Amino acid sequence: MEKNQKVVLSSRPEGELKAVNFQLLDCDIPSLSDGQFLIKNHYLSLDAGFRQWMNEGASDNYLAAMPLNEAVQSIVLGEVVESRHADYAVGAFVVGRTAWERYSVADGSDLMTCIELGSGVSAEHHLSVLGPSGMTAYFGLTDIGRAKRGDTVLVSAAAGGVGSLVGQMAKILGCRTIGISSSGEKCQWLKSELRYDDVINYKSEPGLAQSIQELAPNGVDVYFDNVGGEMLDTVLPHLALKARVILCGAISQYDASGKHAGVHNLWELITKRARAEGFMFSDYVDDYEEASAVIGQWIAEGKLNAPVSITDGIATTAAAFCDMLAGKNLGKSIVRLF
Amino acid sequence: MEKNQKVVLSSRPEGELKAVNFQLLDCDIPSLSDGQFLIKNHYLSLDAGFRQWMNEGASDNYLAAMPLNEAVQSIVLGEVVESRHADYAVGAFVVGRTAWERYSVADGSDLMTCIELGSGVSAEHHLSVLGPSGMTAYFGLTDIGRAKRGDTVLVSAAAGGVGSLVGQMAKILGCRTIGISSSGEKCQWLKSELRYDDVINYKSEPGLAQSIQELAPNGVDVYFDNVGGEMLDTVLPHLALKARVILCGAISQYDASGKHAGVHNLWELITKRARAEGFMFSDYVDDYEEASAVIGQWIAEGKLNAPVSITDGIATTAAAFCDMLAGKNLGKSIVRLF
Repeated sequence: MEKNQKVVLSSRPEGELKAVNFQLLDCDIPSLSDGQFLIKNHYLSLDAGFRQWMNEGASDNYLAAMPLNEAVQSIVLGEVVESRHADYAVGAFVVGRTAWERYSVADGSDLMTCIELGSGVSAEHHLSVLGPSGMTAYFGLTDIGRAKRGDTVLVSAAAGGVGSLVGQMAKILGCRTIGISSSGEKCQWLKSELRYDDVINYKSEPGLAQSIQELAPNGVDVYFDNVGGEMLDTVLPHLALKARVILCGAISQYDASGKHAGVHNLWELITKRARAEGFMFSDYVDDYEEASAVIGQWIAEGKLNAPVSITDGIATTAAAFCDMLAGKNLGKSIVRLF
Repeated sequence: MEKNQKVVLSSRPEGELKAVNFQLLDCDIPSLSDGQFLIKNHYLSLDAGFRQWMNEGASDNYLAAMPLNEAVQSIVLGEVVESRHADYAVGAFVVGRTAWERYSVADGSDLMTCIELGSGVSAEHHLSVLGPSGMTAYFGLTDIGRAKRGDTVLVSAAAGGVGSLVGQMAKILGCRTIGISSSGEKCQWLKSELRYDDVINYKSEPGLAQSIQELAPNGVDVYFDNVGGEMLDTVLPHLALKARVILCGAISQYDASGKHAGVHNLWELITKRARAEGFMFSDYVDDYEEASAVIGQWIAEGKLNAPVSITDGIATTAAAFCDMLAGKNLGKSIVRLF
């Protein structure tokens, strides 16, 4: 049997995360105990949120800080190739949280779910629109954001793995969508591929605040926040009455080795009677099936694209993850291993 | 007929608001136009929130910045003594938003409601537990905070006009209550008069964070935030899963002439799947009657005290307002004029 390979966090990032903070190592494929199974990982899902737990002392109630010199935690999609677990037969395909490695040992915990491929649904779909990113977009918008027909929905990191789906789903729900991104090229793509009604390149004139003011003079009903920090602060004064801020991620803040940047405009939540609420896709695991049916229908009807940025081979993982944090991807970032 | 008197904002506060920022002026009682009525103000309600709108340029969607040299906006309780409005007969008692003055002209807007005195319900009750402060406490806890039996409810400015009611109401709802205040004396009072289960003097050892950790090791389910700023930031890491932060006021921040202090720990709302939501008591005007029945019953059963700090005469208003902002009051601050 072939050897395993893994990408470990070999040093803590000082500020911006770089590929040199990681190392690709050869290692053995472990043998299984009762209740375990071996996954051959076909794909690694690159999710910005994991960046937070790469910092020293970043342990919280959701995850522990990632230990140095161990494979980096990640959502993966793979095939069970050996099993001593009754519920996971050889040949089954699964999505779950293991690590950046070619083969993972799992025991059915860590969000492990079996998936079905085929019939218009690809492996990429299961890591994007039908996977954690899709569930994040769907439940964030519908349950946390209560997005409804006629709402103005503003999305930050709109070209990212989650944002690229949020805009499309909001549009399907009858909302007006405004996407924020960091380049003219990405903004073009948001309009042409993801049908955003309006786009804002926050790095160009007239700047984010003025652009929101012009595009949403009556205020933003739903802000899907993937960025946090200064961008969140800038958006708050532009909320509409009874607005909902979906706190999904804080990609602007993960490189801050100490505390996150201060948000000064929370008073706006009082006078606007508005709400900011955090969530995790994993809270909705019991509702995945229902959501998957809805999303699958949207895909089948051609209403929903699932854009992906794919690189090939485990050796590309660290650089692809850093590129994603720097906003170089269009849609969901995925590494293909086999 | 006697003359009118009013307290005007005569200069913008630079940092801390002081009594010298106000002036007491004699003036005429205006004559009425059709649709207006004259209120003889028996009581002025002192509410910390109004401090925000005394700052230069503090206009927002809720209120405009208070103009200089005009009577300071305020909730009042008074008697209609002259009327050219069909709905407000001479002799009726009303609560509404007019200003720091002995006589006010009103037209039925600005939250004006008729009230009934007598049968165990005093004028003070109508400015505290049955007035804006009581409605703020009640709807904040029940509708925004969804406080329920067994919840741990943390209250800042717990000895203030709203906080003194929140703790008692939460206790009636079956919650465990922890009150934060700024002195040992006030903390004693919170326990003896308001039945808080636990109290924290945030100015004494071991400090706020450590005290919350010790008193609520499993986290805070509901944080009723009257203070904002650094205190809010300190509380966020101690939230329980699915916690609710009721954004009611930001008394620590009103003296900041520029932007409010930054809150750094919003990431906690994500990993805790928690919610921060602002509100205004005035949104619930259609539900006042229902709430008043519930609260009135609590008063009648002796379950709910309505503590007030009263000063006499319009000349005491400015100093009493500043004292309240400095936390020198116990319960609702009221000025009695007649």
